Amino acid sequence: MKALVYHGPGNKAWEEVPDARILQPTDVVVRVETTTICGTDLHILKGDVPAVTEGRILGHEGVGTVAEVGAAVSTLEVGDRVIISCISACGACSYCHQGLYAHCLADEGTSGIGWIFGHLIDGTQAELVRVPFADNSLYKVPEGVSDEAAVMLSDILPTGFEIGVRYGRVKPGDVVAVVGAGPVGLASIMTSSLYGAARIIALDLDTHRLEQAIGFGATDAVNSAEADWVDQVKAMTDGLGVDVAIEAVGIPATFDACTRIVRPGGSVANVGVHGAPVELALQDLWIMDIAITTGLVSTNTTPMLLKLVAQRKLAAEKFATHHFTFDEFLDAYDTFGRAAETKALKVVIKR
Amino acid sequence: MKALVYHGPGNKAWEEVPDARILQPTDVVVRVETTTICGTDLHILKGDVPAVTEGRILGHEGVGTVAEVGAAVSTLEVGDRVIISCISACGACSYCHQGLYAHCLADEGTSGIGWIFGHLIDGTQAELVRVPFADNSLYKVPEGVSDEAAVMLSDILPTGFEIGVRYGRVKPGDVVAVVGAGPVGLASIMTSSLYGAARIIALDLDTHRLEQAIGFGATDAVNSAEADWVDQVKAMTDGLGVDVAIEAVGIPATFDACTRIVRPGGSVANVGVHGAPVELALQDLWIMDIAITTGLVSTNTTPMLLKLVAQRKLAAEKFATHHFTFDEFLDAYDTFGRAAETKALKVVIKR
Repeated sequence: MKALVYHGPGNKAWEEVPDARILQPTDVVVRVETTTICGTDLHILKGDVPAVTEGRILGHEGVGTVAEVGAAVSTLEVGDRVIISCISACGACSYCHQGLYAHCLADEGTSGIGWIFGHLIDGTQAELVRVPFADNSLYKVPEGVSDEAAVMLSDILPTGFEIGVRYGRVKPGDVVAVVGAGPVGLASIMTSSLYGAARIIALDLDTHRLEQAIGFGATDAVNSAEADWVDQVKAMTDGLGVDVAIEAVGIPATFDACTRIVRPGGSVANVGVHGAPVELALQDLWIMDIAITTGLVSTNTTPMLLKLVAQRKLAAEKFATHHFTFDEFLDAYDTFGRAAETKALKVVIKR
Repeated sequence: MKALVYHGPGNKAWEEVPDARILQPTDVVVRVETTTICGTDLHILKGDVPAVTEGRILGHEGVGTVAEVGAAVSTLEVGDRVIISCISACGACSYCHQGLYAHCLADEGTSGIGWIFGHLIDGTQAELVRVPFADNSLYKVPEGVSDEAAVMLSDILPTGFEIGVRYGRVKPGDVVAVVGAGPVGLASIMTSSLYGAARIIALDLDTHRLEQAIGFGATDAVNSAEADWVDQVKAMTDGLGVDVAIEAVGIPATFDACTRIVRPGGSVANVGVHGAPVELALQDLWIMDIAITTGLVSTNTTPMLLKLVAQRKLAAEKFATHHFTFDEFLDAYDTFGRAAETKALKVVIKR
């Protein structure tokens, strides 16, 4: 089979590798039909995630067809069209029992499980992928849901919803600010309306992204390059700040921005993947009755979100701005890597 | 009347001042019978709280008898025995409607209200004190509850419970660690059992405080001066860390300690008053599904806690280790200020 293989910082190739195959009775092999690239893959390619070693097939998002089924798999059959969740989970450990699949304690020859595709085991940017604990890590796609929509359920929609909106405790009438209008930020914007947010403010440095944010459900856009951006946001509340600030970038400046615009009693939900510590102004924040949350998606809301996508209540396919085929994989990376220029949100790559 | 007056950093006096009197129709004047000293008063005396100006009467805890009632007060009468809450609140603004009395928006000639006693208005370390918005800021003391017990309801018991236990989301079976076994930490330890914590680990540098913690309901004590204290705590869980870590000191090292012992999916509840920023290791914590909370007590649980005290389910009087009279006020400060040496928890000062 062919796959997108990591060859150390800065190097990757779409090349011939041995076929994915069943290793455990709880595995299935999926024939990947559609995949996409995540900002995390770019971090890996920069060498930011040392756990990813030379020879690893990248990718943790995909839609495909079950090609082979392990002996202990009970809910899937060859030919089932499935979403491959970015999170693999046994379904049986104490964390899985809480729905915190991201922290699954099962052993996959790795230290813990959760996000392992394209990280600790081979991923979905390939013609075939082995899916561990398949009964709990694949979701059948209902009729009428396109691959373009379904693949957004692998990671970005549940991430924006679970780690941004739900951890941020968005409730009816809230003013929500989303700092960073990239794909995951837009997923938080799109799903904030599910809890009845009254006002959704997108913040970004990029004018084009702010325009896109309006199309995804933001009611207001503030360019955080402007000197008075904090005042602009506070003017959209009663002057006290937003109920929920969602961090969807992953750098100290955007995390700090969230703590500056949250109101007393509000929430800061960190979604971004951080590579460095941040300074937390606890001398000001200790008195504010705020909650700061972090998290890796558990995809425990994937079935619910998929239902809304099937009912056309969430237009997941809107994230797909560019289309490629598997033999154009390197072009897809190039387009996604220059997103500021190409205006790419999610690049969809099909067999 | 006599009162404990702040005369700038390092200076205080128990001296004659004009009698407290009614200024607003929603005020009452309380004849203070019992008061106590808070760690915050010591911070003020060091000059750490610049909002407190020369001539301010200190103190935000007390029990006494209603001496005079404003025209608009409807639930209190002269002679009622009351707890003076450390939080003053109008009961009518948007924050009060949420029970977030700490962030009351009413105007008392101050910028906001909430904690104003001994801070922005004259406090309770006096023979008489004016109580604004008295209907919502005083609690009648039931028969059979001593002043020693009741005065712990002014601040420390609701603070330890609301900001430590409730914001920390303590639930049945949890392992709770309380970092700092001073009065507020002990209040968190005492009230953690209300939510069925399975194990309550006290951490402190002071052996005597750790012994006291056991008497307040801690099941285990770890001296955080020992090099392997993190391993000791993790050995008391399944190796993954505690469900809830409560910070009850207010310095970067103890906050950091909490983030090092919390398990994935757990909570860090900051109760301590901080004077400096902290470094938050978001490069490790972003993936951990933790919630970090902060807060100033709203005393919205005071009536409930008072009921438990009246039913002898919370032995609030145990905090009172030293007793003084008003004319020994400076001795009381001296004893409380040297707590490591005198082993004082709360010093009770009576008329």
